[in-house]
Amino acid sequence: MDREELLPLMSEDTKQYVDRVLDVFSAPYAQHMGLKIEKISMDEVVCSMGIQPFMINSMGRVHGGAIYALIDHTFAIISNMLHDGTGQSTEVKFYRPASTDLKCVAKPINVSRSLGIYDVRVYSEEGKLIASSTCTGFIIRKIE
Amino acid sequence: MDREELLPLMSEDTKQYVDRVLDVFSAPYAQHMGLKIEKISMDEVVCSMGIQPFMINSMGRVHGGAIYALIDHTFAIISNMLHDGTGQSTEVKFYRPASTDLKCVAKPINVSRSLGIYDVRVYSEEGKLIASSTCTGFIIRKIE
Amino acid sequence: MDREELLPLMSEDTKQYVDRVLDVFSAPYAQHMGLKIEKISMDEVVCSMGIQPFMINSMGRVHGGAIYALIDHTFAIISNMLHDGTGQSTEVKFYRPASTDLKCVAKPINVSRSLGIYDVRVYSEEGKLIASSTCTGFIIRKIE
Amino acid sequence: MDREELLPLMSEDTKQYVDRVLDVFSAPYAQHMGLKIEKISMDEVVCSMGIQPFMINSMGRVHGGAIYALIDHTFAIISNMLHDGTGQSTEVKFYRPASTDLKCVAKPINVSRSLGIYDVRVYSEEGKLIASSTCTGFIIRKIE
Repeated sequence: MDREELLPLMSEDTKQYVDRVLDVFSAPYAQHMGLKIEKISMDEVVCSMGIQPFMINSMGRVHGGAIYALIDHTFAIISNMLHDGTGQSTEVKFYRPASTDLKCVAKPINVSRSLGIYDVRVYSEEGKLIASSTCTGFIIRKIE
Repeated sequence: MDREELLPLMSEDTKQYVDRVLDVFSAPYAQHMGLKIEKISMDEVVCSMGIQPFMINSMGRVHGGAIYALIDHTFAIISNMLHDGTGQSTEVKFYRPASTDLKCVAKPINVSRSLGIYDVRVYSEEGKLIASSTCTGFIIRKIE
Repeated sequence: MDREELLPLMSEDTKQYVDRVLDVFSAPYAQHMGLKIEKISMDEVVCSMGIQPFMINSMGRVHGGAIYALIDHTFAIISNMLHDGTGQSTEVKFYRPASTDLKCVAKPINVSRSLGIYDVRVYSEEGKLIASSTCTGFIIRKIE
Repeated sequence: MDREELLPLMSEDTKQYVDRVLDVFSAPYAQHMGLKIEKISMDEVVCSMGIQPFMINSMGRVHGGAIYALIDHTFAIISNMLHDGTGQSTEVKFYRPASTDLKCVAKPINVSRSLGIYDVRVYSEEGKLIASSTCTGFIIRKIE
């Protein structure tokens, strides 16, 4: 995914951050997991991830660690869009086994001068809630 | 890693669970991440993970999602040793960036009839605390 | 607050649970903290709490423990309405100091056969977000 | 509890912080809940709390909100001893009902320049684990 593919997925007021988003998106681990960006606006980032054979757990379903990766990448995009930040903590709950491609929706709960807290949820293709989480980012540097 | 390599790493009272441990260890996602088992006893499981190029974040350090994978695999081994279970929730905190191979130590906090809660911590090669977490497993079936 | 005062605050489909709600509401600790029920429906319970002098912390604001009490009581009402349950875990984040009466809104995130997870948020009188939390209840017995 | 009663409970290297500890201890909500300090050292603070009739839940046991108050007060003492701070988040798990006086032990997990994270556990008189938690404080100002 390059600038030309990403820009149409971004709301007008977020297009100025396209390079910051691409930077997070290009992280080797995000690329390795096959992260896809679906939609970006100031108050919602939607990503998705296809299931690959290496992501499976010992019961033949998507491993919690792979679901977490999708959560973490989506959180990284929304929390780094307006400032440089780093993940400080995540609380994640898993509700049902997953065996389809997954969609992830991240929304801000509260962003202060130093910490940004986001609600991040993962859904199956049928729209079932697979996992929900609260992700906290430490804000290192506000951008101009 | 096979039975013969694993058994010497297990305390006497856990050797009976060697096949259950191998089963969790053999999960495609654990193999993909290069999980290594260091030591298994009833009250402590130690694993490690080498850093691979695909695990890197946009700042050139180990991605939180990769650190989480190590936590989740180590938790899966300790929580599935005595019963069939499934991950219900994890609260994880990240303390400092990681760029070396990582070691992970899981210990039980409280195990009831239906839920097992574990303290799981990740250390750098120099012994610095990289991340700490509390992992909760839902117990599906007690084994005989 | 008795049955006659509570019923008008309940949606039609929840009125059948009025005695269960009164039971939780009558807990000594809920009464002691001055819990008030504002509104009850299947997918939202709203409570409030006035600030009393004994609830103050060493900086002269509402103590986090008092804010937590409001969260816990509101969660207890929504999670015990349809079944007998007990609190299993809570993750709470505090965003800003509070010095006014507080309002608390609880909504279900996911309710399975054995665990109910709820999003519970606390607001100041001016509508500022004071705290947000995820509360998990263990379901002991489904009612008929 | 005054300076003269508190000092013998403090290790040599913490006695210089006696006034800071008394300040947190004197918070109206801590006094109201009957907080007692048992022992203070750099790497462990132990408090206790007697059960009072107003702390009871609808099942006749100690209310989770009262247990949380003990956790929060003990955390406030350890996290404010060396610097001014404020509670940022807590993840708490409840393991068994409590009906005796309670003891609470807080230990540091990791303290950085801006955040202090502590392990805080609550025990019954018989030494059973009632609840465990991870408490995070935001450091406002380092003291000299």
